[in-house]
Amino acid sequence: MKRMVLTCCAIWLSTVVFAAPGDSAVLSRISAHILSQGKCYEDLRTLCKQIGHRISASPEAEKAVAWGEAALRAAGCDRVWLQPVQVPKWVRGEEHLALRFSPDQPYVDVPVLSLGNSEGTNDKIKKAEIVMVESFDAYKKLNPTELEGKFIFFNYHFRHDFPQTFNAYGDAVKYRWQTPEVIGKTKIAGVIIRSVSSGADDFPHTGGTMYPDKENVFPLVAIGNKTADRLEAACRKGTTAAMLRSNCGLKGTAMSYNVIGEITGSVHPQDYMVVGGHLDSWDVGEGAHDDGAGCVQAIEVLRTFKSLAIKPKHSIRAVLFMNEENGAKGGRAYADSARVRKEHHIVALESDAGGFAPRGFELSWNAKQKQAFMAFAPLLQRYGIYDFEKEGGGVDVGFLKNNGSIIGELIPDSQRYFDVHHTDNDVFETVNHRELKMGAAAMAQFIYLADQYEILD
Amino acid sequence: MKRMVLTCCAIWLSTVVFAAPGDSAVLSRISAHILSQGKCYEDLRTLCKQIGHRISASPEAEKAVAWGEAALRAAGCDRVWLQPVQVPKWVRGEEHLALRFSPDQPYVDVPVLSLGNSEGTNDKIKKAEIVMVESFDAYKKLNPTELEGKFIFFNYHFRHDFPQTFNAYGDAVKYRWQTPEVIGKTKIAGVIIRSVSSGADDFPHTGGTMYPDKENVFPLVAIGNKTADRLEAACRKGTTAAMLRSNCGLKGTAMSYNVIGEITGSVHPQDYMVVGGHLDSWDVGEGAHDDGAGCVQAIEVLRTFKSLAIKPKHSIRAVLFMNEENGAKGGRAYADSARVRKEHHIVALESDAGGFAPRGFELSWNAKQKQAFMAFAPLLQRYGIYDFEKEGGGVDVGFLKNNGSIIGELIPDSQRYFDVHHTDNDVFETVNHRELKMGAAAMAQFIYLADQYEILD
Repeated sequence: MKRMVLTCCAIWLSTVVFAAPGDSAVLSRISAHILSQGKCYEDLRTLCKQIGHRISASPEAEKAVAWGEAALRAAGCDRVWLQPVQVPKWVRGEEHLALRFSPDQPYVDVPVLSLGNSEGTNDKIKKAEIVMVESFDAYKKLNPTELEGKFIFFNYHFRHDFPQTFNAYGDAVKYRWQTPEVIGKTKIAGVIIRSVSSGADDFPHTGGTMYPDKENVFPLVAIGNKTADRLEAACRKGTTAAMLRSNCGLKGTAMSYNVIGEITGSVHPQDYMVVGGHLDSWDVGEGAHDDGAGCVQAIEVLRTFKSLAIKPKHSIRAVLFMNEENGAKGGRAYADSARVRKEHHIVALESDAGGFAPRGFELSWNAKQKQAFMAFAPLLQRYGIYDFEKEGGGVDVGFLKNNGSIIGELIPDSQRYFDVHHTDNDVFETVNHRELKMGAAAMAQFIYLADQYEILD
Repeated sequence: MKRMVLTCCAIWLSTVVFAAPGDSAVLSRISAHILSQGKCYEDLRTLCKQIGHRISASPEAEKAVAWGEAALRAAGCDRVWLQPVQVPKWVRGEEHLALRFSPDQPYVDVPVLSLGNSEGTNDKIKKAEIVMVESFDAYKKLNPTELEGKFIFFNYHFRHDFPQTFNAYGDAVKYRWQTPEVIGKTKIAGVIIRSVSSGADDFPHTGGTMYPDKENVFPLVAIGNKTADRLEAACRKGTTAAMLRSNCGLKGTAMSYNVIGEITGSVHPQDYMVVGGHLDSWDVGEGAHDDGAGCVQAIEVLRTFKSLAIKPKHSIRAVLFMNEENGAKGGRAYADSARVRKEHHIVALESDAGGFAPRGFELSWNAKQKQAFMAFAPLLQRYGIYDFEKEGGGVDVGFLKNNGSIIGELIPDSQRYFDVHHTDNDVFETVNHRELKMGAAAMAQFIYLADQYEILD
């Protein structure tokens, strides 16, 4: 006989909810206004099509700063300013990878992207045999002397069995971030990784890496899933080799800016609520989902409060952070400034997980704050917002946590994100107008409730 | 002082939930299997790219029947058969619409689609002035004699303020369906409607219409939003005219088939649970979301039960219905047959709202059945399934409701659907592999729970 157990016993007792009669109507006005008159989609078109990708310290990043400042002014903010940030300047330059899938075949050019912050071959050709490894554990069992001078192909597959792709990303991204740490002192020719990608295509995905040991710096590049499949099959059969020429590398630092717009609070002007995204992107595609979407949504939140003449009690800031992708200097600078100026930040909410249809929020709130907010959660379900289970917060707002603020992040639907993330394919056309606007509305609705009821104060 | 009221008091009491320890694991196996090894996306590629669009009684529809039969056999069904259905044959033929936006300008060709089941101009040119009308109410205030011989342009806008697009569709689709009824006996040249479309593009959207009065049959065509915007502006300024030539029309009937695959139940083989989609599509695009997606998801459900060796207690059928788009003869034929054969259908679940990431189910269950199922609902939340609020059921399974069955429909995210619905743009490339699979997994999970616990029996 089947043993039955008591699970999921969701007895929600004594959740006495006080919502003003008008709350549902205000949330509806916010959503209807953004869906029918919101400008975030057109803002994103401008950012993507007139500026394009915009890595920190590039001319495009500086154009994006000017664009962001103008957009926040046009949104009707009470104050708009630039906050200086010293950012690293990483330059891709040219890069070519050719693979030889068997000793009797010629080298074949394949699509490739060097990983961000990595150093290239200094424009020289590096030619070496490839050793395929499936995981760090497998790597550690190999004899280092047999790896010397070779290309290591980390062939870790993105796990499709996770229902949410961010879990698969979290599982696989260590092969982008931590590989130099695992390689340690072994003098290899370089690293080729299978892209951290859910796409069944051949787009390579870039993204940040780092060298903990400055004495052992080698090139790291990513190849698309189709090339990786072909290389995997070839490695199982016999000897393979790679020929890499690239000249990427860090080229010092430059001055850049976070762009900040504010609506000053009517009751507690010294208490701040932040909505934000990051203005920089990788130097491929158009940085549409990552993170043009978050920027235009943050701007939309403030524009909506102004357009609907909703006067917040607390000050609300839209912060367009610089340099999330390869240094997070903007997030750090903002939090440092807030600490020095003793600015009390109640909550800082970021959108940096794609401009897809929203599903919820992850926050670093405590149980009491969460319980207070959850009383309002049913009002958000008709907008598709139901998920408040995860602890969270994004990279840029993360630095405010040390200041004692609650940090959080919008959770959009994750299924499509890692098809396009950090690729040439992260373009405006992959963003849907209504999904983007629903995300902006969710952020505005969350901020409205938190502001109105001082739930998180 | 603000008057506070008690709202949303979600006290869920005495929901004592019995779930076997293995349930969560089985649901996880189903999802992981489909996400990593499911074949529905490749099935959809075949259906869309090797067959393409497939309106009832077309050669492509017959190819789709053969494809569906083979796919269900390959999925490992215990039985596969074809169920004859007499279907109408509507043929589009050629169609050309030219508009004159002002008397001093020449006619300009614009993208157009005749509405399904409508009759064309019999290949003659119909040329007449345009009268723009914003709504049925506005139409009814006009003098019928002044409308005679003219084209009526129903310029009703898709309402973007609804959070869920199906509400906007429900609001606007009457201008596609009911226009001939509203026109009544007035002898007009024809009707041009602004497409029932959320897209800010110029794709016309087709879809079914009907003539209640066979004595007053006139052409009905749809134009895309961009052309409609231009025509609206022109109509506000002055006199406009249209020139239409088309030769669409109903050309009798033909024999076609529903395609049915079954896994026979191990305990209650005479009790049936249906998962289904419709095999026909409009004669544009590839019928990818509408409703290739539903067909390949239904097949995936049965394949998954077989692959994972989950033996259902009740018989499970995948039904690929014919002729949903312009007659629903397949749904009717299936229900008629079930009634005649006294087949007891417990539940019939359809997927016909796009192959997007799933969010829930709408069902026609009673309060007791719903309460029993809701005990398991928390197990589904990690797969993004949380919405069980709406009453519902799809067109094809709808006919089974009269037989006493519970009917239901998968609710996918709705934001993108009406950008592509019934257009040349409803192609395979707009379907995301993971979203499609998540929908298939949700259906399999729902059926597993309903079968295992006999919740709906």
